[in-house]
Amino acid sequence: MKKSLVALALMGAFSAAQAQSSVTIYGTLDAGISRRTDTDVTAVGKRDNNKLGFRGVEDLGSGLKALFQLEIRYEPDTGLIENTTRPLFQGQSRVGLQGDFGTLRFGRALSAYQETSTAFEPWSGMPAVAGYQTDLQVAGYTSDPLGPAGNSANRFSNAVFYNTPVIANIFQLNLTVGTKEANNNPAIIGRGTAAAPQFPANSMAPVYPYSLSVTATSGPFAAYGAAERNAVDTKLWSVGASYKPINDLKLMATYQRQDQDYSVPINPITKAWMIGANWNVGLGMVRAGIGRKTPDNALNSPNIAKTKQFSLGYDYNLSPRTYLYVDGTRKKITPAATFNFYSLGIHHNF
Amino acid sequence: MKKSLVALALMGAFSAAQAQSSVTIYGTLDAGISRRTDTDVTAVGKRDNNKLGFRGVEDLGSGLKALFQLEIRYEPDTGLIENTTRPLFQGQSRVGLQGDFGTLRFGRALSAYQETSTAFEPWSGMPAVAGYQTDLQVAGYTSDPLGPAGNSANRFSNAVFYNTPVIANIFQLNLTVGTKEANNNPAIIGRGTAAAPQFPANSMAPVYPYSLSVTATSGPFAAYGAAERNAVDTKLWSVGASYKPINDLKLMATYQRQDQDYSVPINPITKAWMIGANWNVGLGMVRAGIGRKTPDNALNSPNIAKTKQFSLGYDYNLSPRTYLYVDGTRKKITPAATFNFYSLGIHHNF
Amino acid sequence: MKKSLVALALMGAFSAAQAQSSVTIYGTLDAGISRRTDTDVTAVGKRDNNKLGFRGVEDLGSGLKALFQLEIRYEPDTGLIENTTRPLFQGQSRVGLQGDFGTLRFGRALSAYQETSTAFEPWSGMPAVAGYQTDLQVAGYTSDPLGPAGNSANRFSNAVFYNTPVIANIFQLNLTVGTKEANNNPAIIGRGTAAAPQFPANSMAPVYPYSLSVTATSGPFAAYGAAERNAVDTKLWSVGASYKPINDLKLMATYQRQDQDYSVPINPITKAWMIGANWNVGLGMVRAGIGRKTPDNALNSPNIAKTKQFSLGYDYNLSPRTYLYVDGTRKKITPAATFNFYSLGIHHNF
Repeated sequence: MKKSLVALALMGAFSAAQAQSSVTIYGTLDAGISRRTDTDVTAVGKRDNNKLGFRGVEDLGSGLKALFQLEIRYEPDTGLIENTTRPLFQGQSRVGLQGDFGTLRFGRALSAYQETSTAFEPWSGMPAVAGYQTDLQVAGYTSDPLGPAGNSANRFSNAVFYNTPVIANIFQLNLTVGTKEANNNPAIIGRGTAAAPQFPANSMAPVYPYSLSVTATSGPFAAYGAAERNAVDTKLWSVGASYKPINDLKLMATYQRQDQDYSVPINPITKAWMIGANWNVGLGMVRAGIGRKTPDNALNSPNIAKTKQFSLGYDYNLSPRTYLYVDGTRKKITPAATFNFYSLGIHHNF
Repeated sequence: MKKSLVALALMGAFSAAQAQSSVTIYGTLDAGISRRTDTDVTAVGKRDNNKLGFRGVEDLGSGLKALFQLEIRYEPDTGLIENTTRPLFQGQSRVGLQGDFGTLRFGRALSAYQETSTAFEPWSGMPAVAGYQTDLQVAGYTSDPLGPAGNSANRFSNAVFYNTPVIANIFQLNLTVGTKEANNNPAIIGRGTAAAPQFPANSMAPVYPYSLSVTATSGPFAAYGAAERNAVDTKLWSVGASYKPINDLKLMATYQRQDQDYSVPINPITKAWMIGANWNVGLGMVRAGIGRKTPDNALNSPNIAKTKQFSLGYDYNLSPRTYLYVDGTRKKITPAATFNFYSLGIHHNF
Repeated sequence: MKKSLVALALMGAFSAAQAQSSVTIYGTLDAGISRRTDTDVTAVGKRDNNKLGFRGVEDLGSGLKALFQLEIRYEPDTGLIENTTRPLFQGQSRVGLQGDFGTLRFGRALSAYQETSTAFEPWSGMPAVAGYQTDLQVAGYTSDPLGPAGNSANRFSNAVFYNTPVIANIFQLNLTVGTKEANNNPAIIGRGTAAAPQFPANSMAPVYPYSLSVTATSGPFAAYGAAERNAVDTKLWSVGASYKPINDLKLMATYQRQDQDYSVPINPITKAWMIGANWNVGLGMVRAGIGRKTPDNALNSPNIAKTKQFSLGYDYNLSPRTYLYVDGTRKKITPAATFNFYSLGIHHNF
């Protein structure tokens, strides 16, 4: 902020660091056509999150680096911000330092658990209808229950993010801790009543949200264990592993258990598992997965309320940055709905 | 999406393709002072759309390319998103492939007709008050009648865009087809009543919107023919031509006919024509146009309700990217209003 | 805007100038942890404005340049637009020319006074709670009283900005003039009543807002004088000076007087003063300030209603672009509140 007075008046509030600036622009534009069998609409939609991001790394010497990243999310079919109402930098906004001690950042981003789990999901954590990340992979859990309406379910705002270095060439520990800050949430009834909601509008969190994950990678094996608590004291733990019997085949499996005892009066425990595979075949990759979630806080018996999903997808790589894809999935949500979903599109990284 | 687990945890959800990224930033900032004679306000405003865009082309080999483009629109006088409420990427958000077969893209952008017509309009399709693009050039037609309130009138969301290659060095065919997806429109009465609007809020389209244009270019001649149908089954056709008797003079004329029979009970036909010229004089260019639209769905007799517009403008080029401009126009909307409009400003491409 | 018809149809509405484009991306990401003693919350927050900007300069020859600048503002802890509702380009959106005559720009930005005063404030004009810029440094004045709710207080929209060149190597004159355009303000009661507010919703300004500042710089001395009138005819004048007895120490003092006689019925005069210092110590810099504001339109006697603030801060520079900081302040707003505020964070320019 060391500006000469003259330069300031001449040029406006330019940053002093302009000559040294080094920003990388990156992103993803993914769009295609899809059809869900229980609706009448053929839609233009997406398989992956659509991103436009800005990031940079500054070398501070002595192994120390400053990092920043800002990531816009949007809907390619309408040009709108993701889900029409999410924050401009929905993807993440973080700044911090990296060194021998690890990486420490402030801001908003995926929680440690949510980020770790994407590497063990056959759709790479993409929010595709055919994928598992936003539902079975996390047992229906949300990391941000007190966010504004329409907010995403897998991020912490107002948080501190810490990752250890890789330890013994195998382990890494990741920790995210949020504050109790209110975030313009709508009133949430929970165990309360409409007249006296458990979490009134714009509630502060009763507990500090945190998320912890440990990963281990060794040759063809990788595994993680994670525990998270969100702002309404819902607890989740999850374990998962992946194995590559051959270089072109990755098998993966996860198990997760959500406990909403603090806010849900009936059937507060949700359990889910998922098994999947990625198989490289020439220029293509086959994605497959099967999973189950039960009972999802249903009023019915835990044995009746459940979700089953089977999915198959195929990527055809046109280049390391661009592929065409086709997905098919069958999802049975007992007793609510059963549908098939098909999609076809192009995924382009820039 | 092939991320190593360690890299993912260390750096966050960076795209794998970062090293190959190649994004071009471009845009327009156009601002100046204007005065409309039937108001009291001298305003800071614009002549052109203001843009900040990101685009890239990836060579996939064998003549195949991947294309993307994202374009923010904004108001320079307030810093707001265009029209205060439009999508972040109001200009366009599209991704697709280009090859021997032509260009195929998904997303949101100008319809084939709207994009084609801008080259036959003396203000180059700019939304200047002195220009014709948003009213007479399209016979008052809107491409997006079921968009959210305040949305722009010349784009398709949820669409597939196809352009043929140039055929025989002369012809090109452009086609846009939309889906029937609902887009958060307000209730539209149309032929219905307030209690039972023809299109309730968030209506699905009754038909597939499409837009088709054919262009022909040969030496000093160019011409187009176009037909479009929007999401409420309004139909439009339009023809136009341009001719350059000398290199520095371009003459243009268009005719368009809108049929709102499906949604407008009285005088559903609107016809318009426009004649214009661009004349390069030294570092400057003179823009001129005259046009007429009738009857614009008026309750009055078609012979009474009409719009007449005469405009004159001048660009003074400071460089290939930057010019100063002055516009004057007289618009007579019978029986509603008559006014003159003057503006003076700077137009800068970056 | 000279596009070939074929290129237009093939590539979409690309700017003709793409090959010559030259845009600099810059910004600031500042985040940390803070605690205010009269609340229960430890928060993730900021010390400085967070920016993501795009700017460029085009050489037009003969000493003439075209300038543009667009600056996004955002909250790093949530990824939202600044203050959740401000314009996308809250920082500024301006375009214009610079030459022997000075700099002339159109759009939205800090008023001449607000921009000048930041160089005489010990927190460099940052909106830190420990800083003085948004309150005592401007005697509680707002440059944009008719902006939409939540808008920033130190900018003019719809304005013309002029800066002279530096005259005699010492002086510079800066002038901003706004229009009377309405900007979607909420109804403002002022001297009116709730039923008949002095400024109804979306009011036009009764006067042309303007802002004028003169700066003088000579060796270790700098000084300014400024006068501003906003859209509701509130007047402000301010003077300030800075002096560097040694290279590493900068002392500064300002005085300002706001007159709200046109809109405030009781105690319309607010006076404020501030004294501060910046002291470079090795890789660090100490910031200190003390100030007082009275009576701030209070219903009470001018002698009772007042604000006192004492602040101390420290920056530790990791590089010319990145520093760590700690701030502490005590603010006593009689008779309303007294609190201490502490913050700790990282400030990164890119």
